[in-house]
Amino acid sequence: QDKLENKSPLVNENLKKCLNTRDGRLVAGLIVDFLQVFNLDFSLAVFQPETNSASLNSVDSREVVCRDLGLSESEVNRKCPLLLELVTRGRHKASEEPSQKRITLA
Amino acid sequence: QDKLENKSPLVNENLKKCLNTRDGRLVAGLIVDFLQVFNLDFSLAVFQPETNSASLNSVDSREVVCRDLGLSESEVNRKCPLLLELVTRGRHKASEEPSQKRITLA
Repeated sequence: QDKLENKSPLVNENLKKCLNTRDGRLVAGLIVDFLQVFNLDFSLAVFQPETNSASLNSVDSREVVCRDLGLSESEVNRKCPLLLELVTRGRHKASEEPSQKRITLA
Repeated sequence: QDKLENKSPLVNENLKKCLNTRDGRLVAGLIVDFLQVFNLDFSLAVFQPETNSASLNSVDSREVVCRDLGLSESEVNRKCPLLLELVTRGRHKASEEPSQKRITLA
């Protein structure tokens, strides 16, 4: 029995390495934010323990993520995941159209 | 019994709306890619049904996500989630000088 328990370390080394970087935590924070905004409670209930991201320090909160991305929280609709905002901006910047149409995700 | 079944539509309208947009699918694709790269099988097993993203058309594959982001697949390490790559590039762009280096978003 003990053997079996010791067999798999159950530590996701790559993920751990990732979450030890600032960008990695930011990414995890973006995912958690997405799950929260859309009330994906089951996914969240699995994601947090599986990534160990429920612990306070490992994942950035929306507030921190906002700051790190240079977004002001008031600027982003609370019903819009930051990740979506990021991709949308990135894409508009990429396609170079000075996008007047701000997405109105109400 | 029937009443109970009919009570909650179990349709996440906001999410559905989001996944009906190109950027929304892209975001979901980025999350799925993250979960796959780090072998977060449990999260994936919940995320896909909860978002209905297991169906072929609703979420972009890594290949499509790459293309949409203007990343060449060969350019991104398969062990690196695209989302991490995106954030890292975005941050470097943001923090550094008015980047002559256009991220090669083709």
